Amino acid sequence: MNMRILAALAALTLPIPLLAQHDPAALQQMALADDTAYGIVEDLTTEIGPRLAGTDREAAAREWAVERLKAMGFSNVRVEPFDMKTWVRGIETAEVTAPYTGAMHISALGNSASTGPRGLEAEIVYFATMADLDAAPDGSLKGKIAFVSHKMTRTQTGASYGQFGDVRRRGPNIAASKGAAAIVIRSVGTDYHRNPHTGGTNFAEGVSPIPAAALSIPDAENLERMIRRAARDNRPVKMKLVLTPRQIGTTQSGNVIAEVPGSDPAAGMILIGGHLDSWDLGTGAIDDGAGVAISAAAAKLVMDAGIPKRTIRVVWWGAEEVGIFGGKAYAEKHGAAGHALAMESDFGAGRIWQVDFRLPDSAAAMQTKIVEALASMGIGRGRGVASGGPDHGPIVALGVNAIDLQQDGTDYFDLHHTPDDTLDKIDPQMLRQNVAAWATVLGIVANDPADLLPKAKVAE
Amino acid sequence: MNMRILAALAALTLPIPLLAQHDPAALQQMALADDTAYGIVEDLTTEIGPRLAGTDREAAAREWAVERLKAMGFSNVRVEPFDMKTWVRGIETAEVTAPYTGAMHISALGNSASTGPRGLEAEIVYFATMADLDAAPDGSLKGKIAFVSHKMTRTQTGASYGQFGDVRRRGPNIAASKGAAAIVIRSVGTDYHRNPHTGGTNFAEGVSPIPAAALSIPDAENLERMIRRAARDNRPVKMKLVLTPRQIGTTQSGNVIAEVPGSDPAAGMILIGGHLDSWDLGTGAIDDGAGVAISAAAAKLVMDAGIPKRTIRVVWWGAEEVGIFGGKAYAEKHGAAGHALAMESDFGAGRIWQVDFRLPDSAAAMQTKIVEALASMGIGRGRGVASGGPDHGPIVALGVNAIDLQQDGTDYFDLHHTPDDTLDKIDPQMLRQNVAAWATVLGIVANDPADLLPKAKVAE
Repeated sequence: MNMRILAALAALTLPIPLLAQHDPAALQQMALADDTAYGIVEDLTTEIGPRLAGTDREAAAREWAVERLKAMGFSNVRVEPFDMKTWVRGIETAEVTAPYTGAMHISALGNSASTGPRGLEAEIVYFATMADLDAAPDGSLKGKIAFVSHKMTRTQTGASYGQFGDVRRRGPNIAASKGAAAIVIRSVGTDYHRNPHTGGTNFAEGVSPIPAAALSIPDAENLERMIRRAARDNRPVKMKLVLTPRQIGTTQSGNVIAEVPGSDPAAGMILIGGHLDSWDLGTGAIDDGAGVAISAAAAKLVMDAGIPKRTIRVVWWGAEEVGIFGGKAYAEKHGAAGHALAMESDFGAGRIWQVDFRLPDSAAAMQTKIVEALASMGIGRGRGVASGGPDHGPIVALGVNAIDLQQDGTDYFDLHHTPDDTLDKIDPQMLRQNVAAWATVLGIVANDPADLLPKAKVAE
Repeated sequence: MNMRILAALAALTLPIPLLAQHDPAALQQMALADDTAYGIVEDLTTEIGPRLAGTDREAAAREWAVERLKAMGFSNVRVEPFDMKTWVRGIETAEVTAPYTGAMHISALGNSASTGPRGLEAEIVYFATMADLDAAPDGSLKGKIAFVSHKMTRTQTGASYGQFGDVRRRGPNIAASKGAAAIVIRSVGTDYHRNPHTGGTNFAEGVSPIPAAALSIPDAENLERMIRRAARDNRPVKMKLVLTPRQIGTTQSGNVIAEVPGSDPAAGMILIGGHLDSWDLGTGAIDDGAGVAISAAAAKLVMDAGIPKRTIRVVWWGAEEVGIFGGKAYAEKHGAAGHALAMESDFGAGRIWQVDFRLPDSAAAMQTKIVEALASMGIGRGRGVASGGPDHGPIVALGVNAIDLQQDGTDYFDLHHTPDDTLDKIDPQMLRQNVAAWATVLGIVANDPADLLPKAKVAE
């Protein structure tokens, strides 16, 4: 409270932003000696842990978040709630029953149907790729369990997630529409641990959801070996699945919002953040405890250094994993008006190595300033167009500018959506590097004279 | 059968061993182009999978092994059965219930008692080390769950397993004797995955077994963080454990034996092998599918190259993990007499980098030959005394000579006794290197004129 009054008074008495205090080099130096971000992600993963969208654990995370953001000195800390349809995990076991035996590590995909507590035992039909499943004749899977393999490749940018993630996003619906009793997929991931990678899937209207789950990669490869051996003498491979997830109906989620009030409201606000919800298997450290921590810690550094011209709005988004429900609710409620820029951190806690932009030509001078300030940290300019991150997709689609600070995701899909997404995977030094890059960009954009308010798209 | 007759005939007609065919360089070249070992461990882990000592899965592995060793052309393939007391795993869950919440990944230790299906909820008492648990006053743990942490360090040799494994081997008995309701330990391992490391423990006579289990390392560290936070305002940390393992009484295990008959039975036999049983969480690839594969593939290379002077006896040991029951039963039945040397592979599938000996002075020339032949592969001579491996401990204690081909175990305790002990962890090229080193040593020892028969200790 005192902090807010002080800030308000300061805003009145010092209408000119303290530009010198937002000097990139000074902010970088402070960030590299600051463990605020690590403290946030440590506390969140320890005191709250997994926080599946729409559940009471996500609600507990929101309460925790409000308290934390207030304690950090942010203004206007509040929750903007929204309703959502919520799915929760149940029992999950898988066992090969013929011609070999073996328990496999499996996890249901979001929106998977239940097998019922007694489970389902059926013959496996193997597809090496998603394209092979697409090519299966309608009805050919009746009563069978489709198994789709598909080895994901490791990339620094995560570029392969679009392609390989297709098996998870689209496979269950296709298998269901072809009459399959269930589907199991090779996890969409690049590790070799007995940890399945969960994630959301969706069934089209008119397609009845079926049980859908991901096998850990060692299990998927073992199943492939079993299938090859059994094929030598035409023996069927059978699996027993027990998956009891449920749709629990409509519950509440919400976006947690906090602000660093700027001296010039007409200049538009900078929207930054990460998502507060996480998949339920890990403790949501890299996805996306790191993102909420990086964005808030950078905003706090700028706030502590002096009042910016532009307001910085930090949003810890709700229900990203299950359909970007928080980002959609926000865009619907607020629209693009008054948003100068969107930036999100949602690709782990690896080193930032590249920056991409989506800025108007009129912001060319600002962009150059940013490129130069980041170059001193060894961060290069990319040739891509910034997306603004998943939660900002809906508002960027309305014409809001975006900057993406690209993290090295070489190891990201070793951990993504697995039980292994835990605090120990975060390197504190890399987290500081992220905060330094974020504070650099925030410090520049928050004070730059460029007109960044959305135009064309809003009018469309 | 034909192979055996041929071999017998060959032994009669060619009483002089085919030394030239056991030339180290020739054997190494063959080994480095041979995937027999990989085939064994691939088939064993795929067709049989986990094979806990004393269970029907270990029995299935023995049947599989007899068939495989016969098909490879070995002679006198047979099982030597023995009885043992058998423990099997049940349900296993752990959940922190206060002041935070969180499901933890846990696995019972061998010989753990059951909590019963309703489980046990109690306050955690934290010990940073085994020494701290030792120092706890008698009765101070009454009704509590002891939690012993203790961070294992990574070494190439596995030297730290003796020290850090103490928590698992001795911790449960000490906690039980001090009145604890249960004990959970930080896994004895060096990885950061949500995979607990199981392993055997024992309770002394007169001490009632208690539930005893290992937390995955990320979970153990999370629990430590929770404990530190709760201690700030003296809040107790509580855990609910459900562990339902059982002792199922006396069942049968056995050692699977196969031989390469030598031309000079009086020269004594070479005893080699690995253990066929595995812990039940993984598929027993590195512990010890690799060992049974390496030893048998090397013996086959020597057999195929020509009849050795000394008989090579390959033993795929039963029930090593739970107390070296196979090795003890063998030593009791056969004694040391007639055994020229013992060598075991039971430390994964990493590159062999060093050789250690336990040989009489009279074998100095043979030892030099071995050192020289291995040096060409980049394997150096160690300063240690060979143990012969865990299963050969009982017979080496009776005076049998030993050679240890030391594997690089830097990553071994990332996988040891976890669900992650699966085929994908084996590098086929490293496995070939192991077979090459083994075949080198076997080729030399099998034909060397040194007197290797056990003497002193047997007479004691």
